[in-house]
Amino acid sequence: MEKMPAAKKQKILMGRVVASLFFEPSTRTRLSFEAAIQNLGGRVIGFSDSSTTSAKKGETLSDSIRMVSRYADIIVMRHPLEGSARMAAEISQKPIINGGDGANQHPTQTLLDLYTIKKKFGKIDGLSIGMLGDLKYGRTVHSLAYALAKFEGVKLYLIAPEQLKMPKEIIEDVKKNLKIEETSNLEKFLPKMDVLYATRIQKERFPDSMEYEKVKNVYILKEEILKITKKNFQIMHPLPRVNEISDGLDKTSAALYFEQAANGIPVREALLSMLIGKKKKVEM
Amino acid sequence: MEKMPAAKKQKILMGRVVASLFFEPSTRTRLSFEAAIQNLGGRVIGFSDSSTTSAKKGETLSDSIRMVSRYADIIVMRHPLEGSARMAAEISQKPIINGGDGANQHPTQTLLDLYTIKKKFGKIDGLSIGMLGDLKYGRTVHSLAYALAKFEGVKLYLIAPEQLKMPKEIIEDVKKNLKIEETSNLEKFLPKMDVLYATRIQKERFPDSMEYEKVKNVYILKEEILKITKKNFQIMHPLPRVNEISDGLDKTSAALYFEQAANGIPVREALLSMLIGKKKKVEM
Amino acid sequence: MEKMPAAKKQKILMGRVVASLFFEPSTRTRLSFEAAIQNLGGRVIGFSDSSTTSAKKGETLSDSIRMVSRYADIIVMRHPLEGSARMAAEISQKPIINGGDGANQHPTQTLLDLYTIKKKFGKIDGLSIGMLGDLKYGRTVHSLAYALAKFEGVKLYLIAPEQLKMPKEIIEDVKKNLKIEETSNLEKFLPKMDVLYATRIQKERFPDSMEYEKVKNVYILKEEILKITKKNFQIMHPLPRVNEISDGLDKTSAALYFEQAANGIPVREALLSMLIGKKKKVEM
Repeated sequence: MEKMPAAKKQKILMGRVVASLFFEPSTRTRLSFEAAIQNLGGRVIGFSDSSTTSAKKGETLSDSIRMVSRYADIIVMRHPLEGSARMAAEISQKPIINGGDGANQHPTQTLLDLYTIKKKFGKIDGLSIGMLGDLKYGRTVHSLAYALAKFEGVKLYLIAPEQLKMPKEIIEDVKKNLKIEETSNLEKFLPKMDVLYATRIQKERFPDSMEYEKVKNVYILKEEILKITKKNFQIMHPLPRVNEISDGLDKTSAALYFEQAANGIPVREALLSMLIGKKKKVEM
Repeated sequence: MEKMPAAKKQKILMGRVVASLFFEPSTRTRLSFEAAIQNLGGRVIGFSDSSTTSAKKGETLSDSIRMVSRYADIIVMRHPLEGSARMAAEISQKPIINGGDGANQHPTQTLLDLYTIKKKFGKIDGLSIGMLGDLKYGRTVHSLAYALAKFEGVKLYLIAPEQLKMPKEIIEDVKKNLKIEETSNLEKFLPKMDVLYATRIQKERFPDSMEYEKVKNVYILKEEILKITKKNFQIMHPLPRVNEISDGLDKTSAALYFEQAANGIPVREALLSMLIGKKKKVEM
Repeated sequence: MEKMPAAKKQKILMGRVVASLFFEPSTRTRLSFEAAIQNLGGRVIGFSDSSTTSAKKGETLSDSIRMVSRYADIIVMRHPLEGSARMAAEISQKPIINGGDGANQHPTQTLLDLYTIKKKFGKIDGLSIGMLGDLKYGRTVHSLAYALAKFEGVKLYLIAPEQLKMPKEIIEDVKKNLKIEETSNLEKFLPKMDVLYATRIQKERFPDSMEYEKVKNVYILKEEILKITKKNFQIMHPLPRVNEISDGLDKTSAALYFEQAANGIPVREALLSMLIGKKKKVEM
């Protein structure tokens, strides 16, 4: 998609209507999907805020999906409830793309994460990847862990405070195919990593704010870390960041997170093309 | 519109800008209008929530309409005040489509309701149609009653709790052309109906919540009703439903409400085409 | 832009994506930009309300801009903080158009104001222009004062209550090129003006509501003023108005404010064309 001429792209979704249903706030995912749709010549209907919809009048998600699936050729949705996208897919007559369902999964983020790693390292097999921060509620790291288990010889370092460790059932699912180390100590494994995937620690998850105060500063990435990391070490983050990555790192060669965000466009273009793209040249 | 090839449709509103002004929340009406506009190759500007507009700064509706009518070729609007669409039409230099004005009217819903009935029964003349639920504040049933009075020999059963009966002035207006029976007893006339048009009963309308509790269960449609209805009996509902129609009915042949919602697209396409469509092929 | 055929216009931004980021509510500016983009064949992504974005999750404006500048070809933004647009321009890889930054500036409003005056009087040099109302916080009058200083022999009457006078630093900046009279008395200079640019007085700015009560009625423009004004006297207002201009003036030849609002479209079309328009005919 990155190399395709704009004029050719504009024909791929010509005449297609994509519903973009964000029951939960989003900037990056929504805007990059909408940019991808526009780049492909498709049209968007939808909402960015469920307070302006019938959900407010008590309509069930099932009914909303039944209706919208009659208005559009495909539905991109984000919803606060785990499993909502799967449920929608069972009801809908049209394809559903999960743009994030609560703390569960965020598969298109994972596609762009994989693409970002592949583009940078030329491969994913055999890399050492750290995941840092909120591994309990962070849906991006859940989806990425499952995806990395599909490659060969990936080593996974899970670095989180005790209260925010990766759920056991996810570790069970992926541990056959990944070498996993769990720790709360970031420095320990930092020199071994090719990629460190940082996430936002959400203060509100902590039952005791003193506990939050204890850990929050441990996980602020600063320029000093580059003294002990590999030469081609890369930092990723699904964004938005709050203070997990200091601005000082932004201009270093380790900062991969903005390029990662930008990769959301070609990856989502590719996905939409595969699902509802015109197979051959359209004559109008 | 349903049979027209997509590529031909895309030229009808080419270069046209439609303002979609929803001062009140909506999913179905707004999204189906926006899908219709997109299908016809038109462009949309507007808002789905008046809290992000100058209305918040105290601008009058008149001024908003004066301004937007200079930006767009037509205005689709929903507003909480009765009569707002008519007032807008008097001020605007461009056509206004009323997408619902408070408890007053919802004429495009009525166009799709009529189309749905016609498509299913091949006619509207002579049918027996029940209206159920909130007939006092439900703008869809107000508009539909007026519309049915334009046909021949339609029988209308109005089933509502005492507090939510159809306004007398509406009955006065339409009773010359409709045979009307009013009741609060659903079962009584159910076997005679071709169509039952159900609406949402809004709890907040009841001064006494005990009164609401008494009536709300009477009007939940369940599969059992099909034992006493005509063979080709159809249930319609403007949606969203809350619990007026049980899920068990969704897969029966009586469930016309999702098809009804889907008909919003071709009907709104037809309306836009008539009002601002290109009369002949555009050369670009 | 006003004379260009629609079909030709539609090619100017073909394939371009414009991000429309309104961190603060707007009707006029946002809708006229979006109509302009659509008229030029461009596509829009964005938001009209920052509560549905990552700003809510604590993302900095810098990070939002870094990200969106990778998704779109240009960014139109409105933000409540003074200087936010300039800061964004320093970070962004793509052009930024300031759609209003707090009480600071509103340059595209000024472009359309200048265009409106030029179109009406055939010139700007030598005109006598009054500015009325909230000259302290009103960003439109700040930007317009700077712009008028670029012309020859413009006379500026600044009419405001003591608490809402034009900031001294702005007067310092422009007084070399403008003849300025400051007063709180509207009538005094009214007969000399070619244009009176009225603004909304925001009650909430007054520390003492009695002070507000004293001045608010002084500045309501009524039909009577036309008895003492020049023959071709024109009233402008960036809108929305609340009660600064009585409805009675709307149909007089002095009412330029709706035409002024309408001019937002061709002016913004011109600006977008200059910044990211296709230079020559695109072949597809």
